[in-house]
Amino acid sequence: MEKIFHDTVALDEERRQLVIIDQTLLPNEEKHLALDREEEIIEAIQKLRVRGAPAIGVAAAIGLYVCAYRVPERDAVQWCMRIHEIGDRIAHARPTAVNLSWAVERMLRVLDHSADSGIAQALSALHDEACRIRDEDIDTCARIGENGAALIRDGAGLLTHCNAGRLAAVRYGTALAPIYRAAEQGKRLKVYADETRPLLQGARLTAYELSDAGIDTTLLCDNMAASLMAQGKIDAVFVGCDRVAANGDAANKIGTLGVAILAKHFGVPFYVCAPTSTIDLSCPRGEKIVIEERAPSEVTYLWYSQPMAPDGIHVYNPAFDVTPHELITAIVTEKGVWRDYSRIPQLV
Amino acid sequence: MEKIFHDTVALDEERRQLVIIDQTLLPNEEKHLALDREEEIIEAIQKLRVRGAPAIGVAAAIGLYVCAYRVPERDAVQWCMRIHEIGDRIAHARPTAVNLSWAVERMLRVLDHSADSGIAQALSALHDEACRIRDEDIDTCARIGENGAALIRDGAGLLTHCNAGRLAAVRYGTALAPIYRAAEQGKRLKVYADETRPLLQGARLTAYELSDAGIDTTLLCDNMAASLMAQGKIDAVFVGCDRVAANGDAANKIGTLGVAILAKHFGVPFYVCAPTSTIDLSCPRGEKIVIEERAPSEVTYLWYSQPMAPDGIHVYNPAFDVTPHELITAIVTEKGVWRDYSRIPQLV
Repeated sequence: MEKIFHDTVALDEERRQLVIIDQTLLPNEEKHLALDREEEIIEAIQKLRVRGAPAIGVAAAIGLYVCAYRVPERDAVQWCMRIHEIGDRIAHARPTAVNLSWAVERMLRVLDHSADSGIAQALSALHDEACRIRDEDIDTCARIGENGAALIRDGAGLLTHCNAGRLAAVRYGTALAPIYRAAEQGKRLKVYADETRPLLQGARLTAYELSDAGIDTTLLCDNMAASLMAQGKIDAVFVGCDRVAANGDAANKIGTLGVAILAKHFGVPFYVCAPTSTIDLSCPRGEKIVIEERAPSEVTYLWYSQPMAPDGIHVYNPAFDVTPHELITAIVTEKGVWRDYSRIPQLV
Repeated sequence: MEKIFHDTVALDEERRQLVIIDQTLLPNEEKHLALDREEEIIEAIQKLRVRGAPAIGVAAAIGLYVCAYRVPERDAVQWCMRIHEIGDRIAHARPTAVNLSWAVERMLRVLDHSADSGIAQALSALHDEACRIRDEDIDTCARIGENGAALIRDGAGLLTHCNAGRLAAVRYGTALAPIYRAAEQGKRLKVYADETRPLLQGARLTAYELSDAGIDTTLLCDNMAASLMAQGKIDAVFVGCDRVAANGDAANKIGTLGVAILAKHFGVPFYVCAPTSTIDLSCPRGEKIVIEERAPSEVTYLWYSQPMAPDGIHVYNPAFDVTPHELITAIVTEKGVWRDYSRIPQLV
């Protein structure tokens, strides 16, 4: 498929398909996938072909619409029930990011409100809601960029972990949006990207998209961040986020907690960037967030090929960790920069 | 070559060759190399076929002896001069571990003292000194094990970084010696091994030798240690060391500083295990230790095969970092457990 879709997640209006960049092939190959079956959409989310909290939310919404379009039932109640079932399975494809269930819930609410008007009407409402979720994501990320860029000085050295850039959203990204915006404002930046084991989103995705955008980018292994900070090369850390609890604790890619502790030790500001849709008021504290454990082979096999550890060794492989709010300098959202976590309920 | 040598570094007395396990092939293949040429000995040290501060010290000593045996000059002064040149090049094969130059200096001092008695006599003296350095390493590591085991309680969860086990020394190792000894004493242990990017010494070597010894071992990516500590699973951290400055600051494998900061944050004791030969009194503070920067391809290519980052990306790839003494609970040496770093000069 040609590179006709520039966004990370898109709707092909003509073919009614969900179009994504297969991120497991980056940076070696930029291949687009066009999906319209439930199983392949769930597979793409679980195998991280599309990943990043905002992106999987939008992929779930568009994915549910393209599946709905293909549901064969002609009885409106049956049709509706089938879409609820599909939505339920898509929402549970991965457990940690709240955006997945948040997007599916929005879609199903619209479905329930429009179902009485008939299938054609409901389908059109689902289409519009999916597009709205996508457009809101673009707008939200642009605002996060604007709000976060104000925290970045000319000449700054910035550290980021995992990928919360344009490849984690539809455009711009969350943690990288302030960096893109600051660069547009003419600020000179030096960005350091943690490679982010085991799946190397930092090396494969962040280093790829930042250098593609002409930003001075240096790649490092996760365990080198302390050495950089000790040399005074990092002025601020920007990371994304998969779920924010009501008290400000934030779950993000495994390794984020470690970076936050280092930042505190060296007196470096630590910013979490997230749309307010990432805030989960039903979750009071970080310890209540369900952390996905992934397969040992992600650690023992280098990118599914050569074994790099003894056969059968036990492996600890959580996909996320939780950073307590006292280690977070501020949460940067589309509504502003929040330092007072007691006011989080007002954000949503 | 058959597995006739069980030590990591050995002298084949009959063939007068340095015998090492090629650690770049572990854990997939246990292959021994027999070396007797200067270039191949230096290559083995630089390519990390033999690595770990104590092991490369012993390899340098035995290596210098087997090279000396083959120096063709029959004039004693010329012969001596050639060995000094070879020793100088071996000592500079890598910059950070003090053991390399320490071992070569010991050999050259013996050479200078015995050269007047003729080549045969000097050669015999070099042989004996190399064997002494090897045997002292075995004895020293056994004592470190005994001293360190006293710090480990039954049922402990222990974290280690990189490989400072039997594969980093002749036998037993430094950081792993207390673990082996505690296990021998019947203590039940749960050991967690950081994989240690970029060259994965934790995954390839530590996980290999610990599980080979029947110790309950769990492998994790470097960025997962904070998550383990947050769950209270780590009772103590044991790491090795490449150079200790006179004030107690310690250079060790990149990532050690980060683990030390995490340990401090979570109130977990952090022990550095090293023979007193690792203490460099000529180095007043850690910031004076020369840190080796290694090739970007170690980070961008997964074990020299598939590219995992965009072409030409800048890379930060220091091989070591320095942990300031205030983050080190104690230094475990063959002479005891030292918590008062003002007394370090008395150790040497």
